[in-house]
Amino acid sequence: MPDKQINFCLGVHNHQPVGNPPEIFERIYRRAYLPFVEILAEYPTVKATIHYCGILLAWFEESHPEFLELLKDLVERGQIELRTGGFYEPILPIIPAGDAVGQIRKLTEFLESRLSCSPKGLWLAERVWEPHLPVLLNEAGIEYIVVDDFHFLSAGFEEEQLKGYFITEAENRLLKVFPASMKLRYLIPFEPVEKTLAYLDEKLKSGSRVITLDDDGEKFGAWPKTHEAVYEQGWLRKFFRSLEANSDWVRTSTFSECLTGTKPAGRIYLPTASYPEMLEWSLPAKSAEVYEDILAELKASGAYGRYQPFFKGGFFRNFFVKYPESNRMHKKMWHVADKVHRSGNKEALDELWKGQCNDAYWHGVFGGLYLPHLRTAIYEKLIKAEALADENLPEELRHSLETTDFDKDGLNEVLLSNSLTNFYLSPARGGAIFEIDYKPKFNNLLNVLTRREEAYHQKIKEAVVEKDVKTIHEMVTAKEAGLEKYLIYDSYEKLSLIDHFFGINEDLKGFADGLCREMGDFHLSSYDILDSNEPVPGPGPTIQLGCTREIKGEKNVPLLVKKRVSLAPSGAIIHYEIRNLSQEALEILFSTEFNFSMFVEEKRFSRTAADSVELLDWVNGFTVTFQFDGGPSVESFPIETVSLSDEGFERICQGLMFLPTWRLMLDGEGIFETKLSLKIEEQP
Amino acid sequence: MPDKQINFCLGVHNHQPVGNPPEIFERIYRRAYLPFVEILAEYPTVKATIHYCGILLAWFEESHPEFLELLKDLVERGQIELRTGGFYEPILPIIPAGDAVGQIRKLTEFLESRLSCSPKGLWLAERVWEPHLPVLLNEAGIEYIVVDDFHFLSAGFEEEQLKGYFITEAENRLLKVFPASMKLRYLIPFEPVEKTLAYLDEKLKSGSRVITLDDDGEKFGAWPKTHEAVYEQGWLRKFFRSLEANSDWVRTSTFSECLTGTKPAGRIYLPTASYPEMLEWSLPAKSAEVYEDILAELKASGAYGRYQPFFKGGFFRNFFVKYPESNRMHKKMWHVADKVHRSGNKEALDELWKGQCNDAYWHGVFGGLYLPHLRTAIYEKLIKAEALADENLPEELRHSLETTDFDKDGLNEVLLSNSLTNFYLSPARGGAIFEIDYKPKFNNLLNVLTRREEAYHQKIKEAVVEKDVKTIHEMVTAKEAGLEKYLIYDSYEKLSLIDHFFGINEDLKGFADGLCREMGDFHLSSYDILDSNEPVPGPGPTIQLGCTREIKGEKNVPLLVKKRVSLAPSGAIIHYEIRNLSQEALEILFSTEFNFSMFVEEKRFSRTAADSVELLDWVNGFTVTFQFDGGPSVESFPIETVSLSDEGFERICQGLMFLPTWRLMLDGEGIFETKLSLKIEEQP
Repeated sequence: MPDKQINFCLGVHNHQPVGNPPEIFERIYRRAYLPFVEILAEYPTVKATIHYCGILLAWFEESHPEFLELLKDLVERGQIELRTGGFYEPILPIIPAGDAVGQIRKLTEFLESRLSCSPKGLWLAERVWEPHLPVLLNEAGIEYIVVDDFHFLSAGFEEEQLKGYFITEAENRLLKVFPASMKLRYLIPFEPVEKTLAYLDEKLKSGSRVITLDDDGEKFGAWPKTHEAVYEQGWLRKFFRSLEANSDWVRTSTFSECLTGTKPAGRIYLPTASYPEMLEWSLPAKSAEVYEDILAELKASGAYGRYQPFFKGGFFRNFFVKYPESNRMHKKMWHVADKVHRSGNKEALDELWKGQCNDAYWHGVFGGLYLPHLRTAIYEKLIKAEALADENLPEELRHSLETTDFDKDGLNEVLLSNSLTNFYLSPARGGAIFEIDYKPKFNNLLNVLTRREEAYHQKIKEAVVEKDVKTIHEMVTAKEAGLEKYLIYDSYEKLSLIDHFFGINEDLKGFADGLCREMGDFHLSSYDILDSNEPVPGPGPTIQLGCTREIKGEKNVPLLVKKRVSLAPSGAIIHYEIRNLSQEALEILFSTEFNFSMFVEEKRFSRTAADSVELLDWVNGFTVTFQFDGGPSVESFPIETVSLSDEGFERICQGLMFLPTWRLMLDGEGIFETKLSLKIEEQP
Repeated sequence: MPDKQINFCLGVHNHQPVGNPPEIFERIYRRAYLPFVEILAEYPTVKATIHYCGILLAWFEESHPEFLELLKDLVERGQIELRTGGFYEPILPIIPAGDAVGQIRKLTEFLESRLSCSPKGLWLAERVWEPHLPVLLNEAGIEYIVVDDFHFLSAGFEEEQLKGYFITEAENRLLKVFPASMKLRYLIPFEPVEKTLAYLDEKLKSGSRVITLDDDGEKFGAWPKTHEAVYEQGWLRKFFRSLEANSDWVRTSTFSECLTGTKPAGRIYLPTASYPEMLEWSLPAKSAEVYEDILAELKASGAYGRYQPFFKGGFFRNFFVKYPESNRMHKKMWHVADKVHRSGNKEALDELWKGQCNDAYWHGVFGGLYLPHLRTAIYEKLIKAEALADENLPEELRHSLETTDFDKDGLNEVLLSNSLTNFYLSPARGGAIFEIDYKPKFNNLLNVLTRREEAYHQKIKEAVVEKDVKTIHEMVTAKEAGLEKYLIYDSYEKLSLIDHFFGINEDLKGFADGLCREMGDFHLSSYDILDSNEPVPGPGPTIQLGCTREIKGEKNVPLLVKKRVSLAPSGAIIHYEIRNLSQEALEILFSTEFNFSMFVEEKRFSRTAADSVELLDWVNGFTVTFQFDGGPSVESFPIETVSLSDEGFERICQGLMFLPTWRLMLDGEGIFETKLSLKIEEQP
C-alpha cells in the first residue's frame, strides 16, 4: 500500500439557459442530472462538489422537488458540497457589480434555506476571469473558485507547480483558486476509466497531492451519445467503483475539505482568461482562422506543449465586437439596469438578472447567440424589467426622445419610446432602426442575426451527417447536407429602415444572396439628425434624419434622402422624402429594407395587397401591419445562418428580410415622397 | 501633392522615480527634457502631446520654474497638449481605486492651475492595462489613453485595422484608446529620420489616416549614447524639419485634435496587457527563458509576425509572485493605506501616494526593484505615512500585537509595534522577521533582496564591457567583467532570525555562497505561535514561536526551537530556547541569520566584542547594536546581486548578511538558552 495519497477534487457544474423550453430541462434531467446523482449516492465514500445554477434549482423546486431532497440528503451526509454562483449564470465581470453580488447572494440564500448548506465556493460562469473579480467575490462572501490549469499556465506557471490551490487578491481582498485539470476534462467520461486512474497515479508519482476536475455535468449523459456510454455501458459506475477500490491512494475530497486540510500551494495573479476554446471563439473570424492553423501546426510538430503557456487566444468581451447583436443586447441590459436600479422595483430587478444569463451573449460550440429562442428570452426579460421599472412613470414621461450613446460606440443613437413601443435608431449606421420593442409582448421585433463568416465555416465541407462518440470538441458533423450553399455573408448589418438604390432592371430576387448591385451607399453612410426648425408633425416622439450621397452611374447624381420616424399610439409612421439635387432626370429603384426576427410562418405570411402587408407572429401572438403609399413591390426572404451546435453544423432561420421597393422617376430637382405606417397589434 | 494626409500623433512621456537623487533629475533635465522642448519650440507647426509625471513637475517648479513657463507658452500657442496621470506614477490597477482617482485629480489640478490646461488624456503608467480601468478613469474625468498596438493585436485585431482611435468601456463607462506604433518606438530616434518618414508614407499608402507614437522622453537624450545622436548629431532637428517639409501629407496633431477631427475606428476590449517586454519580464525566470527561446526561434524562422497576436508573456501583477520583496512592499502599502484612509490625514495621504510610485515594485531593464535607493524611498514614504496616520493614537495603542494575513499568502503573520519600531514576523516562513521599521528615520532595516535566477543571467557571458548606440532593448553590456562569479542563488528568502544548524566542523566562510550543509530544515519549516499560557515576560508586545524538526545525522535527533521576540523601548529582545527531545547527546553549531539592508560601510562595521556588535548606517544616521549572551562567533558577508540596468549588467550590494553562531553541546533532553538584544538608536 502506498504511503502517499492524492486528493482528487471532483467538481461538476450544471446549467441550462434562460429560454430553454421545459422539455429540454426534463430531458436533460432524466438523461444526466438525475442518474448522475442517483449513482453517486450508491458510492457514499466518493465525494463531489457540485454546482447547479439557480435556473435549474428553481426548476427542480417546481418540477422535481424530490431531487432537491436527494441533494439535501447527500449534503447532510457530507458526500457533496454545493457551490453558489450568479443565480441566473451571468458572466460576472460584464454585469453591474451590484447585480453580480446580488445574484450570488440570491443563490447562496437558496442553498442555505432549501438545502441547508453554506456555500464557500463559487462556480465561475464559463471560467471568464478578470483580475478585478476578487473584489466583488469577497463582497459576496466567496472563499474559493475553480479555474482551468490553462489560466495558471497563461500566467507563466508550469503544470508541475500546480500541486494545490493558490491565493490571489485584488484591492487586497483574498480569493483561493483551484486549477482544474484540462487533461481530466478530456479523459472524463470519454476515455476508459483506467486512463483516468493511470493519470491520477502518474500525478501522484510526480509529487502532486491535489488534482482537480471541474466540468459540465451535462457531459454525463446529455451531450451527444454520452448517455449510452456513461450509463448504459456503465462508465460512471465503473469510475466510482474504481475510485472506491483505489481509496488507499486516491482520496476524493470536496473543495472545502481540501482548503481545510492543506496549505495554499502558492500565490498567483491570473491574467484575463477563460478556457482556451473560449479565447479562440472570442477572436475575430480571420484571426481565429490563423489561430487554428497555428494550433494545428504546433500540435502536429509536437511543439504545442512548449508553446502553450504563451499561445493564447483573445478576450471574452470581444464577443461584443465580433457580434454587434451581442453588444446591443449587452448595452440594452445596461440601459435597463440603470432604470431598474433607480426604480427600486424588486420584481424588475429579478427580470433584469434573468436577462443577464450568459448563453445568448456569445457563441462557441453550443449555439448561444445563434439560437433565436435564447436571444428572444433575453430581450423578453430585459423589456419586461424595463416595463416594470417604468410602470410608475406618468403617461407623458413614457413618451420620450433620447439622444445618447446607447451602444457605446462613441456616437449617438436616438431612442424613441411610447407606452406601446421603443424604436431605437442609429443615425451613424445608415439611419437604421436597430431595435423595435413591442412592450405588451416584451418582444424585440428586430432581434435578427447578420450572416457573417465564422472560422469554422472553413470546415463545412469536411462535415459528415452522422455522429460518433468523440468529445464535443473534436466533432465535425452536420445536421443536413449541402449547408455550404447557405454560406452567404452580409456586407452590412441586418438592421431595419436601410436605404438601397438599384438600377431599374435589377432582379431583386437576388437581394437575399447579396447579388444586387447597389447604386448608392446610403446604407453604409452616416445620417445627420436634422434640425427640427421645420415643423415635423407627428403624433408622438419624432426624429428626422437626412443624408446626401451620390448615385453612381454614367453621371453621378447627388440625392438627399430624408426620413422621419414618428411614434404613433399603435406603432409608427415613417415618412420618406428623396430629392434629386441635380438637373439630371433619374429613374431608379428605391428600397427600404426591414429585417424582422418574428416567428413568421411562410404560409401565414399573407401579402394582402401591394399597399398593405400583414406579418403574423404566431408564436408570440401579435401582428405587424404595414401600409404603404405608392404601391411598392414587396419582396421577402428568410435570413438563414449556418452555425455550430453541440450536434454539428446547423441551419437556423434568424428572421424575415422584407423589402418594399418603389420605382422612382425623378426629374432634375424632382422630389419623391412616400409614407409607411407600421401598426403592431396583439393577435385577436 | 498627394490629396491624402496622415495624422501623426506624437506622444512623449517623461518620468523620474520617487527616490532618484536631484543630481539625476538635473542631469536628465539638461540632457533630455530641456533640449527636447527647446528644439520643439523652434518648429511651431510640429505638435506634440506630452506627459510629465507629478514628481517631475514638482521638481521643475522648485528647480526650474522657467521650464514650466516655457511649457505654458507652448500650451497657450496650441503646440503641445499635456496629459495627466497618477501624480506619483503608480500602476493604477494595483493601488486602492480611491488613491488612483485622487492621484489623477492631483496631477490634473496641477496642470490646470500652473499650466492653464484641462487635460483630457491620461498617460497609463507602463501601459499596464486591466479591463476594469475605464471605471476609475471615468471617475477621474479621463477621456482617452494610449496603449501599444500590441495590446490591440493581442485581442485578435490586425495591424491594418488600427486606423484611428477605438472605443472601449467597463461597467458601461466609456474610454477612448489610441494604439501606439511599436514600429515607430523602435525607429525613433534610433534609426535615420528617413526611415520614419518612409514608414509614415507606407502607412498612408496602405490606407492609414492616423498613426501614433507614444514613448519615453528620456530616449531623446538620457538613454545611453542618445544625447550625442539626438542633439549633437542633430537627429531631432532633422526629424522636426522633415515633418515640416512634408506637412502636405504628414500632419502632426495632438491627441485631442485627433479626437475632435475623426470618428472612432471601432470598438475594442483589451485583455490584460502591457508592452511585450513587460509581459516577458513578469514571467517566472524559467518560463521567461522558454519564452525568449521561442521568440528567438520565431524571429529567426520569419514566423513571428503571424504568431505575434497569440504569443504573449505573463501578467504584470505576477511581479508580486516572482519577487516576494515586491509583494511585501505592495501589501505594506495596502496596510498603510487602510490606516491613512481611516485617519483622514492629508499629509499622510500624500506620503502614501509617493509610496505607490511604480518603479521599485517591478524589474525589467531599468533596475527597478533591484535598486536599493528606490526601495528605500518607497519604504520611507510608507513608514512616514503610517507614522503620520498614527500620530494621534494614544501611546498605549501604539504598542500592539496583531495577527493577520499581512502579505496575503493565506497564512497569518504577526505584527509587533511600539512607538519606535515595527517587527513583522512570518511563523510559516521559519518564524523569520521580514520587516523591522525604525520609525524615527522611516527606515525598513530588512529591505534586502534575495539573490535569485533571472532569465537574462543566461546571457551574462555574452556581455561586453562597452557600449554602442543600439536601442536599449538590444544591448548586452556589463559594467564590470567577471560578473558570472556573483551569480549565487539563495535557496530560501533572505529574511532575518532564520535558524540554521551546521556540523561543528562546518566552515561558515562558505555560508554566503550557500556552501554550508544544513543539518536541519527549520529555516524552511512552519513555526507555531505558542500558546501564551506560559507567562512570557516582556517589556512590550511579545510573540513566542516554536518548531520541532529533526537534525539529520547518523541518528536523527529531534529538536524543539522556541524563540520569543519582545519589543523594548529601544528595540527588541529575542530569547532562544533549544531543547534536545532525544536521549542522544548532540554537539552542533546553531546560527540565527540576519539580513540588513542598512548602508553599512565595511570600515565602519566595528565588531567591538564577541558579545556586542554595532552596525552603523552612515547614510540614514542610525546604529543597530546587538548584545549577545554566550559569546557567539559572528560572521558577516555582503549580499550582492547581478541585474540588468539601462547601462548593462551591474553588481549591486543589497545589504549585509550577519550570522551569530553558537556551539551547542546538548545532553539528552538538554536545553540551550540564549538572549539577543537589539537596540536601534539615532547616530549621535
